[in-house]
Amino acid sequence: MNLKNCMVAQSGGPTVAINASLAGVIRGVKASSMYDTVYGSLNGITGILNNKLLNLTELMDTHPDYIDRLTNTPSMYLGSCRYKLPDYMDDDSPYVFIFKQFEDYNIEAFFYIGGNDSMDTVLKLSEYAKKIGSNIRIIGIPKTIDNDLCETDHTPGFGSAAKYIASSLLEIAHDTFIYAVKSVTIVEIMGRDAGWLTAASALARNEYNTAPHLIYLPEVPFDTDDFLLDIKRLLFERNNVIVAVSEGIRDAAGNYISASESTVDNFGHSQLSGAGKTLEFLVKEKLGVKVRSVEINVLQRCAAHLASKTDLDESVALGEKAVALSEEGVTASMVTINRISNAPYKVEYGYAQITHIANEAKSVPADWIAPSGNDITQPFIDYLTPLIQGEPQLTYKNGLPVYMDVSHLSKHQ
Amino acid sequence: MNLKNCMVAQSGGPTVAINASLAGVIRGVKASSMYDTVYGSLNGITGILNNKLLNLTELMDTHPDYIDRLTNTPSMYLGSCRYKLPDYMDDDSPYVFIFKQFEDYNIEAFFYIGGNDSMDTVLKLSEYAKKIGSNIRIIGIPKTIDNDLCETDHTPGFGSAAKYIASSLLEIAHDTFIYAVKSVTIVEIMGRDAGWLTAASALARNEYNTAPHLIYLPEVPFDTDDFLLDIKRLLFERNNVIVAVSEGIRDAAGNYISASESTVDNFGHSQLSGAGKTLEFLVKEKLGVKVRSVEINVLQRCAAHLASKTDLDESVALGEKAVALSEEGVTASMVTINRISNAPYKVEYGYAQITHIANEAKSVPADWIAPSGNDITQPFIDYLTPLIQGEPQLTYKNGLPVYMDVSHLSKHQ
Repeated sequence: MNLKNCMVAQSGGPTVAINASLAGVIRGVKASSMYDTVYGSLNGITGILNNKLLNLTELMDTHPDYIDRLTNTPSMYLGSCRYKLPDYMDDDSPYVFIFKQFEDYNIEAFFYIGGNDSMDTVLKLSEYAKKIGSNIRIIGIPKTIDNDLCETDHTPGFGSAAKYIASSLLEIAHDTFIYAVKSVTIVEIMGRDAGWLTAASALARNEYNTAPHLIYLPEVPFDTDDFLLDIKRLLFERNNVIVAVSEGIRDAAGNYISASESTVDNFGHSQLSGAGKTLEFLVKEKLGVKVRSVEINVLQRCAAHLASKTDLDESVALGEKAVALSEEGVTASMVTINRISNAPYKVEYGYAQITHIANEAKSVPADWIAPSGNDITQPFIDYLTPLIQGEPQLTYKNGLPVYMDVSHLSKHQ
Repeated sequence: MNLKNCMVAQSGGPTVAINASLAGVIRGVKASSMYDTVYGSLNGITGILNNKLLNLTELMDTHPDYIDRLTNTPSMYLGSCRYKLPDYMDDDSPYVFIFKQFEDYNIEAFFYIGGNDSMDTVLKLSEYAKKIGSNIRIIGIPKTIDNDLCETDHTPGFGSAAKYIASSLLEIAHDTFIYAVKSVTIVEIMGRDAGWLTAASALARNEYNTAPHLIYLPEVPFDTDDFLLDIKRLLFERNNVIVAVSEGIRDAAGNYISASESTVDNFGHSQLSGAGKTLEFLVKEKLGVKVRSVEINVLQRCAAHLASKTDLDESVALGEKAVALSEEGVTASMVTINRISNAPYKVEYGYAQITHIANEAKSVPADWIAPSGNDITQPFIDYLTPLIQGEPQLTYKNGLPVYMDVSHLSKHQ
């Protein structure tokens, strides 16, 4: 008997929805007439290299609500890695080993759930497969809170992060409004190069809340004089000014507005922190007003207790779609979300060539940013609003959300 | 007709439950045969001085679910203040004005919802009332995320903050476990002088999660050498070490372990930040391991989307209790929660003399801290666990929690 199997792994930074796509892949395989077993590679592609593989088909049967719980569990059930494959022209040894593993496990398709860097891995594996004449399907499944992948309307994980940021901003506004004294609150939000997440803070505005009063995205060169003028103007009108600012804002010369020295990670990205703190000190020094900065911390990417149901549902669907596409022979691609309409919100799932996606990044379009450079426009709000709709039914035990046991991650390390 | 009325105000820092106590007062007045109208003083006691008063009895009829929505709304519906009453021996002018207002509005009872500093106001108003022979009842209703008020088993607002901190710690643990490399994560939690909130991080431990692996409270002098040894020891055993640390940890000489200069607020408290950052830099420098610090920001006191139902229910009950006690003639007191049993969890509501509470603070008992000084003991867990139970039914609209309109706070400023 020659069973056909497939394999899945997760890579990059955590999101709330990346396990939902894993659950989608498992569901897809369960419904498939082609695949027998789906294996999970631990810590991204390195699990294949180190032979750390889980039989997910078997595991699924260990727990009655394995799929549901996995769907609602934040971060990565299979762990992650920051491993960058070398160019196979320079060193094909990891490729040789990976494809030998695929052969040993009768792997017909490999699904890689991740962001930009992971799509680079999908591209490289696809090119190597083509070179050696392997017909193993290599398909990327997008996830990133940053929403900066091309060819897809938006990325899984973004909607939940946006919902968390908007809710947090609203709660911070309630926290801020209580004192009848002039104050400035600066809220720093993730997003190195693209302002998608920072823009989502605008969804906090409602019938009684006009905050955030200023929104600064990395797409617009940041001018500290303009910023101080904006603040001064608003402090005439009202007591409490709330500012949403991306961690990645830069001046006209391209230098980060950040107090800390930047260091460079394995992929050549600068690691930032401190734009909010820097602006806090600036306001204190130049305006002498009460000021505080709040860094929306890693919870914006892991607070599964406040996920967007829309986001989780779409993430599951993309996992299932990837399995279905692989059965049709699609490879060297990433599954995508295509928006059909905003009201009612409707999407279709498709795919795009990985060559159009890997190592590209999608910025906020210029006409979605207000001409003043300190706010976003209505079309952007219309784009964002459907993505944060709906609340998943979470189970609580002893007062805490119930997530999937991930102790295998430390056992296998 | 000589109608009897009462008045309520809120003061100090925000919590998730302080509006629940306000809702309790309104419910109590609604059910009362003694009081006609309850007035809300905006921005604490300063609303009486500036004649900024809301007729809450009237407002309650404007919205069908006014009470329910108020119960679930974070921070202060009536706003807050940091105003400290002078000693009436030095300057009785604010007292004269306040009690003239009470007379003009036929106020028979004044309820002040707040923490330690607000109980100082309750004490002073009570003493002044006694001096002038007024029989206006002055009753404090506790609230503080810090849980440091005496005479009550715990304080409203603490349980919800504890639930937020424990859930966040669990989600941060999921976020942290994914990389197969050695790393240290330092989570900084509020609590200037008492470690109640930091201890609540221990509730994140479950069948698969042993984090936080170290817990440092301000009650124990912090030794950086011991801390580094603790970290080194744990890094032998496992990849990912997670540390919960209070913002208020101090060395044996009493100096804050904080990078920032401390400033002093109106009440003479040092304003802190940076214990987590300081330890991050220390670990980076001394151990050279991957390290990150996360400051659990103001959301620990305003994230109503993750409130404890037990906390909200008790806060409402204390508001109602305060109204009932005032009808019985009780004054110069604060309502209290008395725990009858842990399993099943059962409480009674009572009151205590304000002289025993104002300007006192309750630290974590020594035998609830592990002898090692870097963890808490089981009796502390048993104390904390009931306080975070239950999830309130929140309404969501457009993807965000629906809270009470607080635009009156900016209009009246």
